[in-house]
Amino acid sequence: MSELRRDPIGGRWVVVQTDNPKKPSDFIQDKDVLTDPAKCPFCPGHESQTPPETLVNRPNGGNANGPGWTLRAVPNKFPALKIEGNIDRQGSGVFDMMNGVGAHEVIIETPDHTKELSQLELPEIEAVISAYKARCLDLRKDKRFKYVLIFKNHGKSAGASLSHPHTQLIALPMIPKNVHEELVGAQHHYEYKDRCIYCDMVRQEEKYEKNMVASNKTYSAYCPYVSRFAFETWIAPRAHFAAFDHIKPDTIPDLVAIMKDVLSKIRVTLNAPAYNFIIHTSPIEDKIREEYHWHIEIMPKLTKVAGFEWGTGFYVNPTPPELAAKYLRGGM
Amino acid sequence: MSELRRDPIGGRWVVVQTDNPKKPSDFIQDKDVLTDPAKCPFCPGHESQTPPETLVNRPNGGNANGPGWTLRAVPNKFPALKIEGNIDRQGSGVFDMMNGVGAHEVIIETPDHTKELSQLELPEIEAVISAYKARCLDLRKDKRFKYVLIFKNHGKSAGASLSHPHTQLIALPMIPKNVHEELVGAQHHYEYKDRCIYCDMVRQEEKYEKNMVASNKTYSAYCPYVSRFAFETWIAPRAHFAAFDHIKPDTIPDLVAIMKDVLSKIRVTLNAPAYNFIIHTSPIEDKIREEYHWHIEIMPKLTKVAGFEWGTGFYVNPTPPELAAKYLRGGM
Repeated sequence: MSELRRDPIGGRWVVVQTDNPKKPSDFIQDKDVLTDPAKCPFCPGHESQTPPETLVNRPNGGNANGPGWTLRAVPNKFPALKIEGNIDRQGSGVFDMMNGVGAHEVIIETPDHTKELSQLELPEIEAVISAYKARCLDLRKDKRFKYVLIFKNHGKSAGASLSHPHTQLIALPMIPKNVHEELVGAQHHYEYKDRCIYCDMVRQEEKYEKNMVASNKTYSAYCPYVSRFAFETWIAPRAHFAAFDHIKPDTIPDLVAIMKDVLSKIRVTLNAPAYNFIIHTSPIEDKIREEYHWHIEIMPKLTKVAGFEWGTGFYVNPTPPELAAKYLRGGM
Repeated sequence: MSELRRDPIGGRWVVVQTDNPKKPSDFIQDKDVLTDPAKCPFCPGHESQTPPETLVNRPNGGNANGPGWTLRAVPNKFPALKIEGNIDRQGSGVFDMMNGVGAHEVIIETPDHTKELSQLELPEIEAVISAYKARCLDLRKDKRFKYVLIFKNHGKSAGASLSHPHTQLIALPMIPKNVHEELVGAQHHYEYKDRCIYCDMVRQEEKYEKNMVASNKTYSAYCPYVSRFAFETWIAPRAHFAAFDHIKPDTIPDLVAIMKDVLSKIRVTLNAPAYNFIIHTSPIEDKIREEYHWHIEIMPKLTKVAGFEWGTGFYVNPTPPELAAKYLRGGM
């Protein structure tokens, strides 16, 4: 018998296969081949192949848009949305449309083509997190934007076209549908309970223990009770905190440590899988939301999304989170 | 500049790349290798490898669960949900859970391991559609179920594990999240306009013409203005009709004809791609919805869903529907 579990925020049911659950070795993956560094626009010496830097770490100095950097942020050369222009909203019969205005940047995490984020040293990962924050704070100033999404596609089956370690950042002129749903769901809970639902979930997972992957003073990482995907893992601040880019500098080392730890565990347990991660955070606005709680959702790409998922919005998870967490903790 | 287009039902924005759109030859696909017919549980002579038939066409007679059939429906041997048991709803802290009760069946469309649905003869496709309807009507009688989802995964990257032509059917004890969203969106429009929004959309596409792929007396097929995916194509009744399984027998030949036509066009234009299709229909209930309109959504698997889509619920479509429809009509 499988178990149906319901996410209290979006009302999504997940079918958790508790009979004959899949273990890490049951997932057959197409192994990624590293793209050619000689043709990589993110490798040192190829700086002219990207648009000019919006942020750079060049500890020993050197010219802008030349080598010698340890981290670069650049506009995406093939952006989904472009920074120039007016939004120009208009109707088209029953539909609405606007121009594709937005910012689409790439944060090149390291000059080393062959590494994966978890293989960087702690100070290097700290530089990556600090770059996320700095780019968010800068893009917040543009009044056309309502949301900044930070996400990573690692590996071909997670949608990455380049192997070189990078994260993407998109500033949008509207609040994304998925974020809007989370805000509405969290607001309902807050009105009823006067508490943040994410705080409740983090506390419940910490108390239940079985889904926990790692924890430190400031952050907890767990395979959520309603995981959509096998080995899905969330990292969340243990205390209430609405917006990622308001992260306090003294808590960044704890975030860096837990990210390295969790991504390393995923890498080792699942044989270096493709994965996506997404930073879920508050929209750009003046108020601080009592009801929303930023967090990172890490989704290893082990199964295909197919007709059932497209038709229902529900997911079939072949590895219960209790079991996934046990594997990730190294307990099996 | 790309165009942002908003689906009026779910509020989903799609980024349509109007600059440098992708043409069919730009999509690099992993070619599927046919699974081995000797090991195929859906091939004639292997009937004992599936659970017993729930429906069968055996025009020249023969024993149940033996060869001689032209179409079979059987319970899925590895079901996401199981038919036995009680739902047993309960809370678990902030979460809800219930037992994984449901029906999960497979309709084996033909004894021929190597065919794809569009390659069957018209009477064979008519038998497939009639089997969908018959299984829906039968599962409607089970009072535990609220929705019957019919979907097809064709090809490995669309999630199919077996090549043999088949469709899946899942009866669920709740209304799926995606369907609920469509019902709510359609209800809003109906309250405001006193018209079905799908009727409005079909009429708008027919009038606009550029997105049309095919049409006959009863059905229209088009690449919707807010297509999430390249070459996404919908087939919808031209007149208002809420539930697929109430389809009138005299309109089935028109549906069969347009399905064969559209799936053949996709097969030829896109070099036999993997695809999913989903029949979107009304929940199981006594009332007939004035605001909802059944339709089929066909989604060729040409691109990967990645971090942007997971984070936002929005999609980037590299081929504007106007262009996709032109290719599918054979105009380019």
